[in-house]
Amino acid sequence: MSRTVAVIGGGAIGLSVAWRAAQAGWTVTVHDPAVASGASWVAGGMLAPLSEGWPGEDAVLAAGAASLQRWPDFGRELEALSGESLFTSDGSLTVARDAADAADLRRVAEWLETQGYRLDLLSRAEIRAAEPSLAPGIRLALLAATESAVDNRALVRALRRATVDAGVAFTPQAVTDVDALDADQVVIAAGTAAARLWPGLPVRPVKGEILRLHHRPGVAPAPTRTIRGSVHGRPVYLVPRGDGIVVGATQHESGEDTQVTVAGVRDLIADAGALMPSIGEYELYETAAGLRPMSPDNLPILGRVSDKVVLAAGAGRNGILLTPLSADAVVAELSGTPLAEAKTCSPDRFDGLGASIDRVRK
Amino acid sequence: MSRTVAVIGGGAIGLSVAWRAAQAGWTVTVHDPAVASGASWVAGGMLAPLSEGWPGEDAVLAAGAASLQRWPDFGRELEALSGESLFTSDGSLTVARDAADAADLRRVAEWLETQGYRLDLLSRAEIRAAEPSLAPGIRLALLAATESAVDNRALVRALRRATVDAGVAFTPQAVTDVDALDADQVVIAAGTAAARLWPGLPVRPVKGEILRLHHRPGVAPAPTRTIRGSVHGRPVYLVPRGDGIVVGATQHESGEDTQVTVAGVRDLIADAGALMPSIGEYELYETAAGLRPMSPDNLPILGRVSDKVVLAAGAGRNGILLTPLSADAVVAELSGTPLAEAKTCSPDRFDGLGASIDRVRK
Repeated sequence: MSRTVAVIGGGAIGLSVAWRAAQAGWTVTVHDPAVASGASWVAGGMLAPLSEGWPGEDAVLAAGAASLQRWPDFGRELEALSGESLFTSDGSLTVARDAADAADLRRVAEWLETQGYRLDLLSRAEIRAAEPSLAPGIRLALLAATESAVDNRALVRALRRATVDAGVAFTPQAVTDVDALDADQVVIAAGTAAARLWPGLPVRPVKGEILRLHHRPGVAPAPTRTIRGSVHGRPVYLVPRGDGIVVGATQHESGEDTQVTVAGVRDLIADAGALMPSIGEYELYETAAGLRPMSPDNLPILGRVSDKVVLAAGAGRNGILLTPLSADAVVAELSGTPLAEAKTCSPDRFDGLGASIDRVRK
Repeated sequence: MSRTVAVIGGGAIGLSVAWRAAQAGWTVTVHDPAVASGASWVAGGMLAPLSEGWPGEDAVLAAGAASLQRWPDFGRELEALSGESLFTSDGSLTVARDAADAADLRRVAEWLETQGYRLDLLSRAEIRAAEPSLAPGIRLALLAATESAVDNRALVRALRRATVDAGVAFTPQAVTDVDALDADQVVIAAGTAAARLWPGLPVRPVKGEILRLHHRPGVAPAPTRTIRGSVHGRPVYLVPRGDGIVVGATQHESGEDTQVTVAGVRDLIADAGALMPSIGEYELYETAAGLRPMSPDNLPILGRVSDKVVLAAGAGRNGILLTPLSADAVVAELSGTPLAEAKTCSPDRFDGLGASIDRVRK
């Protein structure tokens, strides 16, 4: 008889863990009162570990790159299973609007080269040729051709299909006590709610607002690449999405609040317009806010914390990117052979959280 | 046996015509595939004929004032029937941000006095005392204490209840040919679609976008009065609405387009913020666009155009304000005794449209 695993959380990571665990022979139940309604539903879906990298954050880069490498096979398997079209971007372009931005881009490019990634810096003329809708003031851009983006909503639809086909069961009851679950193993993949399920888990909510835009007739077409930049010190990105663009994302540490604010929308429109002036002519058909489950060091928290419990937590701004790595790491942990590439993501790095420490539950 | 009337259009005006006609003994059917989904659903609901008046537009002022005078009784009757709470504002305050705005306000106040309306001009200190959330740069304001505002969505809910209680029938089939309707009388109250139903009817769509905001804890409360102003030449208003504010409205002559654009939202946020800086902290929970049925002279088109057909058309930006007058004018016309107050609104003022002219249908 196969052993049972309860996955708490039906977002992109929880569903992927459930899918891969079922494929590995586990009997899986996903616990979520509202599958795919959290951060996965709001995400931009960028797969951009290189261009989001920052000198010194070598482990974050390595984890993101390990997951990016898994994305083509992972995504194609899901596309074949579900008929969904997942990939929506032909690489990413991180742009510089002033000398300070340009200096940052060069610094990132140099650091990436020391990490084994050689990326091209595009000149003003090359940028205009590649993405004619961008603002003429953009002076330099870092091109990461391998950094695609994923339609987050198509992804969760595909994962629902894949999990159901693989025999995963779903229960809509919210879990408040991990110990009460009648399963051999429990995976906590509950986004910001994970902190309530495992005392001491250092995951905090960081609210992010996004805009979803549709192209309108006669307006300049959307970029084919994900466009990233910084305006007045605020990061902003434009992710191609079918016949439109997802613009993100604000960042607020304001508890569990998921209301979209006037100021958030105002800033996103202004910042996106600074990168792509024609954005004003697009249709604004949706605004939304989600809660990123942030860890203290921007690395996810992947691994075992007790004989029964494995964490897939703290993916922060990169939950969609980290989905395949998280699934592989958790399933490897369930089978007793932890994944080497996820070693830096172990809960052991936090005092009192790891499996090697005697754990005191409150 | 009572005679029958078909009302084409289930917005605020069509429903009110139907309600009042049923009360007057007519057997009424409302034809609309989507009752209350058009401009009535998107409206701000200002009842502001005085402060929206402009020197020279005496007839527009008179029609608006005649309808405003009907609003208290009309609204209270609907509130009693439906249990809805309709009125949401304690008057209107039209504000001036610079010397040119202030000169305009004084000019409007002087003209209103010649028309029999004496309104107060508030100083900077009086404005701060009355509405502390307004921007400190506002230097003068025109107070119209009798100009309330109406919750447009509560209004259409109340009217649906009132019409059903009065025995009005509803049919979801769209009307394309007035002559094909099997009714003794037909009222065209179809918003911008009216122009397609009656050849030569000079009603054109003017798109308007609005924002709906909710108050958030810890943020300055919404004004208690409707706030109107002009920013960079664009009119903007903030209408109190329960626990929030409706901000409107953009104006675009762009056909039947009802998509909300990024630029429309951007401008509304910027202009509203210039009047009330704390607006950034409000929740933006809805954006919407509707089509105003504009007439060439900004007066509604109310009256008979054939033995069978009566128009309630072209209410433009003031459909909610003009609802009680329109209902009374149409029901008076149905009974053969046209309303004196609606005389300036007669279709006869347009060549080839009035009942006195031999009409050629295409």
